[in-house]
Amino acid sequence: MEILRYKNQSAKQLFGEREETSSAVESAVGRIIADVRENGDKALKAYAEKFDGFNGGSFEVTEIEISKAVQSLSSDYIKMLETSVFNIEKFHKKQLRKGFEIDDGNRIVGQKITPLERAGIYVPGGTAAYPSTVLMNAVPAKIAGVKEIVMTTPAKADGKIRAEVLAAAKICGVDRIFKAGGAQAIAALAYGTESIPKVDKITGPGNVYVAAAKRLVSGVCGIDMIAGPSEILIVADKGANPAVVAADLLSQAEHDVNASAVLLTDSKELAEKVVTELEIQVGKLPRKEIAQTSLDNNCKIILTDSIDCAIELSDKYAPEHLELCVGNAFEYLEKVKNAGSVFLGYNTPEAAGDYYAGPNHTLPTGGTARFSSPLGVDDFVKSTQYIYYTKSALESAAVDIIKFAVSEGLDAHAESVIARLDR
Amino acid sequence: MEILRYKNQSAKQLFGEREETSSAVESAVGRIIADVRENGDKALKAYAEKFDGFNGGSFEVTEIEISKAVQSLSSDYIKMLETSVFNIEKFHKKQLRKGFEIDDGNRIVGQKITPLERAGIYVPGGTAAYPSTVLMNAVPAKIAGVKEIVMTTPAKADGKIRAEVLAAAKICGVDRIFKAGGAQAIAALAYGTESIPKVDKITGPGNVYVAAAKRLVSGVCGIDMIAGPSEILIVADKGANPAVVAADLLSQAEHDVNASAVLLTDSKELAEKVVTELEIQVGKLPRKEIAQTSLDNNCKIILTDSIDCAIELSDKYAPEHLELCVGNAFEYLEKVKNAGSVFLGYNTPEAAGDYYAGPNHTLPTGGTARFSSPLGVDDFVKSTQYIYYTKSALESAAVDIIKFAVSEGLDAHAESVIARLDR
Repeated sequence: MEILRYKNQSAKQLFGEREETSSAVESAVGRIIADVRENGDKALKAYAEKFDGFNGGSFEVTEIEISKAVQSLSSDYIKMLETSVFNIEKFHKKQLRKGFEIDDGNRIVGQKITPLERAGIYVPGGTAAYPSTVLMNAVPAKIAGVKEIVMTTPAKADGKIRAEVLAAAKICGVDRIFKAGGAQAIAALAYGTESIPKVDKITGPGNVYVAAAKRLVSGVCGIDMIAGPSEILIVADKGANPAVVAADLLSQAEHDVNASAVLLTDSKELAEKVVTELEIQVGKLPRKEIAQTSLDNNCKIILTDSIDCAIELSDKYAPEHLELCVGNAFEYLEKVKNAGSVFLGYNTPEAAGDYYAGPNHTLPTGGTARFSSPLGVDDFVKSTQYIYYTKSALESAAVDIIKFAVSEGLDAHAESVIARLDR
Repeated sequence: MEILRYKNQSAKQLFGEREETSSAVESAVGRIIADVRENGDKALKAYAEKFDGFNGGSFEVTEIEISKAVQSLSSDYIKMLETSVFNIEKFHKKQLRKGFEIDDGNRIVGQKITPLERAGIYVPGGTAAYPSTVLMNAVPAKIAGVKEIVMTTPAKADGKIRAEVLAAAKICGVDRIFKAGGAQAIAALAYGTESIPKVDKITGPGNVYVAAAKRLVSGVCGIDMIAGPSEILIVADKGANPAVVAADLLSQAEHDVNASAVLLTDSKELAEKVVTELEIQVGKLPRKEIAQTSLDNNCKIILTDSIDCAIELSDKYAPEHLELCVGNAFEYLEKVKNAGSVFLGYNTPEAAGDYYAGPNHTLPTGGTARFSSPLGVDDFVKSTQYIYYTKSALESAAVDIIKFAVSEGLDAHAESVIARLDR
């Protein structure tokens, strides 16, 4: 692996385009959505059979199925889930906000916060099923005060859903679970079917079909961000352990062949040792093919003049995950502007944040950390403003409001004030 | 005008579909964006000439142009703008948030809030130019702490921009103003040209071309909501003045032929009097053709059994603007779940909120108040999470984190923890 040098290049020069490829799947997904919207459960059933090979029984997961799933898992596993939920709750509770009110005597303005009525969580199936996805979406919704949390996830051909996923849903208080996956599940959540209720917002990751479906139903209901391939950028100084840095790069690379792993360091020695470590470690991984392809395509090791330069370049890249494997990590955190989640010091692997520490793992990718935030309680509430004028307050403001309205050519706006004065 | 009766119908049955029509302009806009992205200022110049008839001089508005604009306006007008900015600032300052940190001794998790570096505000030109648009976008950005606020607005053929718009920009501290409009301006803000700097987020209203362009560049930079036609829903009891209610319905109807105005009342007498008042008042308006068409197409007067029923129906509709023209407005505000901005009591016309009272006038339309919020300071900041574990904290958590990673089939994630334990 080649070691590059940072000489104030742009992020684009160093890392290429990270834009999403425009989706050729959109028209297929558009047809699926129209079909589910028109034919409801009938269409859902047909797609479940076609795509998942699942053709039996009801969409809704029963209490018995959930109990069986919980019982099939070790008490250690359940306890681990519970600790994780505890940490995630503790963090997200801090995100809760109250409204405010400014009372000027004869004039009140304010903002109130209302939780969404019903949220829909999409949990992918496929090769790996992620209980952490359930936790990271359901816990913030619950804390926000969402009345009903509905989850959909594809069943396997035998109608089963992974026990870990069902147990996670049970522990964080998901209200209803449906066996439906892909674009058709997104359509069902957005428009509702006989079985699946229409929700106000859909969150959760998915493949390109799910992403395209979320994009197409956006506006009919709310959606969270459309996540691209996962990324890590590690800033490391000479105090970092090369084996640890390599392990962290690989923990990203194993996700999928499009995942990106970048190391920025001011130590040539560290860079060289990490290259060696990568070669040693990758061969030992069960997912070594994926990790190796990802390393070949999207792994960069870049030497910078200083750690400050590395932070500057990191801000240009705006990584989803940023590790500051440096001695004085909190000092550098102050300087970081664009990143989804930051892992501080030598002892904080990204993996700690993926499941366990408490912050969310749904993070802005592809450089969107420049302007967007991790998933959180804010995604499950909305605010409503309000204004109250007494007659005397309106009389005092009337001249200005009328002047403003007339200057914008909107006379009926002015008339609506005048009508009140004449009363 | 027919008076309808609410018998627990759905919002769709009463008001029809309010979805945005899928945009046939997208491919044309796609070409404009590609052109600006490739040819920068040259493309911008060509489009300014083609669409606005403006072909002279530089894109950037000079200090001299701005001074002249301010001087051309009456001191009363400037004072009115300043009062409005004062009110908007006072409201939006309450939206400012701080980060938080949870320090468990050997484990710290937190969230920090960072303002966007550069925001781009789009201000439409055309038949009416709105200084209030400048205020409602620039003030929240400024309060959020955005480093640089860039504004684009189309110039007329003579290269001029309305004095009111320039003065508003000056008063709220817009840093740079460019003469560019339409999809090409959005492309310039998203990708940057020789003259216009690339921004992190674009906010502001616009026609279908601007809306399509914002949708297409979303992800390259952030965008605010895509606003649909404006709406008002008035809940009025028998204490409301029919002339006032009619004036308020018309203040919405005059916006454009697609604007919607809905009255819900439990008083048949009021409903009938409002119908009469509408007929009288609409004829007197300068924009009477627009208002009349809008009334014919999208105005509904609906009788409900009670004010509580009206609130229930309003929540199904989720209006952009909600007036509670009732005696005990604050009591009913408690029950409102879905609305952008609420105007309370008999003396608070929507017009007060459009310019002056302080809350934002950029509000969710088309029922999206179910899940989205007015524009505010939050739109101009983003949050970054952070996590710090000491070695001992990681050792305590290691068993759980490894268990979680392995259960998701991600062994390199587990290895990244193990590598630190072995150190």
